[in-house]
Amino acid sequence: MTSFDLSAGAARRALAPTGAYDDDDARERYATAVWCQLIEPGDSVAGRLIAAHGAAPALEAVLRAGTLPDVTPRELAEGRKRWLPRLSARAVADSLSMAAARSVTLVTRSDPQWPSQVDDLDAHAPVCLWVRGDVTALRRLEASVAIVGARAASRYGDHVAMELASDLAGGGVAVVSGGAYGIDGAAHRAALSSGGLTVALLAGGADRSYPVGHTQLIDDIAERGVVVSEVACGSAPTKWRFLQRNRLIAALSAATVVVEAGWRSGSLNTAGHAAALSRPLGAVPGPITSATSAGTHRLIREYGAQCITGADDVRELLGLGSGSDARAGVQAAYTGESTRVMDALSTRGWRESGDIARRAGMAADTVEGLLGLLRLDGSVEAGTEGWRLARRAGG
Amino acid sequence: MTSFDLSAGAARRALAPTGAYDDDDARERYATAVWCQLIEPGDSVAGRLIAAHGAAPALEAVLRAGTLPDVTPRELAEGRKRWLPRLSARAVADSLSMAAARSVTLVTRSDPQWPSQVDDLDAHAPVCLWVRGDVTALRRLEASVAIVGARAASRYGDHVAMELASDLAGGGVAVVSGGAYGIDGAAHRAALSSGGLTVALLAGGADRSYPVGHTQLIDDIAERGVVVSEVACGSAPTKWRFLQRNRLIAALSAATVVVEAGWRSGSLNTAGHAAALSRPLGAVPGPITSATSAGTHRLIREYGAQCITGADDVRELLGLGSGSDARAGVQAAYTGESTRVMDALSTRGWRESGDIARRAGMAADTVEGLLGLLRLDGSVEAGTEGWRLARRAGG
Repeated sequence: MTSFDLSAGAARRALAPTGAYDDDDARERYATAVWCQLIEPGDSVAGRLIAAHGAAPALEAVLRAGTLPDVTPRELAEGRKRWLPRLSARAVADSLSMAAARSVTLVTRSDPQWPSQVDDLDAHAPVCLWVRGDVTALRRLEASVAIVGARAASRYGDHVAMELASDLAGGGVAVVSGGAYGIDGAAHRAALSSGGLTVALLAGGADRSYPVGHTQLIDDIAERGVVVSEVACGSAPTKWRFLQRNRLIAALSAATVVVEAGWRSGSLNTAGHAAALSRPLGAVPGPITSATSAGTHRLIREYGAQCITGADDVRELLGLGSGSDARAGVQAAYTGESTRVMDALSTRGWRESGDIARRAGMAADTVEGLLGLLRLDGSVEAGTEGWRLARRAGG
Repeated sequence: MTSFDLSAGAARRALAPTGAYDDDDARERYATAVWCQLIEPGDSVAGRLIAAHGAAPALEAVLRAGTLPDVTPRELAEGRKRWLPRLSARAVADSLSMAAARSVTLVTRSDPQWPSQVDDLDAHAPVCLWVRGDVTALRRLEASVAIVGARAASRYGDHVAMELASDLAGGGVAVVSGGAYGIDGAAHRAALSSGGLTVALLAGGADRSYPVGHTQLIDDIAERGVVVSEVACGSAPTKWRFLQRNRLIAALSAATVVVEAGWRSGSLNTAGHAAALSRPLGAVPGPITSATSAGTHRLIREYGAQCITGADDVRELLGLGSGSDARAGVQAAYTGESTRVMDALSTRGWRESGDIARRAGMAADTVEGLLGLLRLDGSVEAGTEGWRLARRAGG
């Protein structure tokens, strides 16, 4: 039995900076904030316990070292060993105060703003989200795309990320990314410039601007879009949290597009999560001589990522129509018998149809029929001396 | 009944500049040369007749207007209308003289040098090939790749074509292309420079250098590789013949790779033939901002072409092994629990394992086990005060 005050009173006191709640709501919300301190993102044992019992009952059971039907005794014992050393009412109260000070809202799975698409992560789903900015935006991500990529992006990558994000966000598709230097930053900035919605998922607390050089950008996103993290305010971004943040980017977005990535880029991790979630995955090709495109080519070659050449391709990935309608007919126009008739004509002199047929190696009556059709579309001209190629025609 | 001297005597006289043959061989070879004058490449009615009866018997039947079991009376009647206006013993004799003068060899389907892979074209297979250079090379194309692309190639495209062709041809893979400006020329040149085999398929007669600016290159290819055409010597390259030449490039090669291509490039036609023949198809990506890569991205998106990033990928396309073995383990190394332990360590100060476990949110015994492993590979150091990150370690 571990001693910890999980009473409604303690909960309401800790939550006071963030708002007033009735007893049950306060206890559940407080217990969620406590869980946030105990676990690292993606803890599937905690995930199963909370999903099955609620945050407060699950925490109570863990504190009293009871058995629970949804996890094995061994899983629970291992869980207690990693969770309880972190138990601190002080730390939870501090994180809630920091959240209140920076206008960061705690969104739990029972709140109406909860983005239910992240539940596709099952036991690895976040237990809550800390949100700075427009909380309602989380429920407006049906049309959304994660645009991610290398921090050390090339000018080409920056340019493409901006073009894609500007076009998509301007057209009502939310642009989700990780707030990092390089591709992420270019995508966020272009989305903001186009007046569209953009969402930044941070690996550290939503109260912290990371990287520091993006403090202004992240503030802008919070003001006009939304900044999200699953770790409590005050938490540092660690490599593990970056990797887990990537799974959240993939889960929150309807599709993921990697613009540039080195051979072992972290963006491939985001792409892997998108693929594991059966979310559509796209990758932008680039010069094969560029190290920053090695990862996107790898995604196309080895992971079945769609080759993305523009915003229309992303909309197609999202099932929003558009795409290449000009596809049909191209080959037909160049391989038909009319090509052979055209080959046998000249712009310079008139030729009679028998001559044309012999040159084309086709029967005269076939050639005459085709000449009539070609005249209709303006490709050839008829005169008293025969036929010739119209000046505007050609390959 | 159309009058034409198809006797062994006439055949031997016409073939005299090219060599001496016995009666049957002379008649069949001469009839093949006659067929070459009558038809355009890919004529499937002629193809079926010649495959079923041989060139001479098929021609005799056409001349006497008999019926034949392998084509419908209508097909035969249509065929006669397009073939017979071109019948000219003079033209055939001229083409054979031109061939002899330029050392162009007529290779028929019964010759041992016939490259049987082109028979995959069925009725659309060529009835013969006119070959300048090393005729035996046609039977050494098991390991071969067509490297084709835009005439108006970019410097990037030229560079990639040269790198691929040089590496592949130098390693024993024959490089097949169309002798055109741009990608084709770059591929041929690099293959020659590397001392490998290269094959140029021309749309006009094998005696003609087309384009004129590539006269020296095509002469070089004839000298150290082989120049091939299915149309008779003296024939002009027409658009139809270019398109049919493309089918032959695809059929002669074990795989086709398009390096650069505009949205409606003729190279897409070659790629379409490769796909229709179930030959492996590859395309090299490039910047999505480059018009000369629009066609290759289209092949990857719409035609299932493999994304080619280097010569190894081409060898993989050809089933010659190689490829990316470095694939495994990359993600595992970055997502394991060891990452969390590393996150919880510092290079600056020593930390004891309980502290590390709490920071990592993991059980102390798990952390201790992992610290031991990490010490073995040199990632962490152990001291009397605990553990720290080795200086060389990091993300």
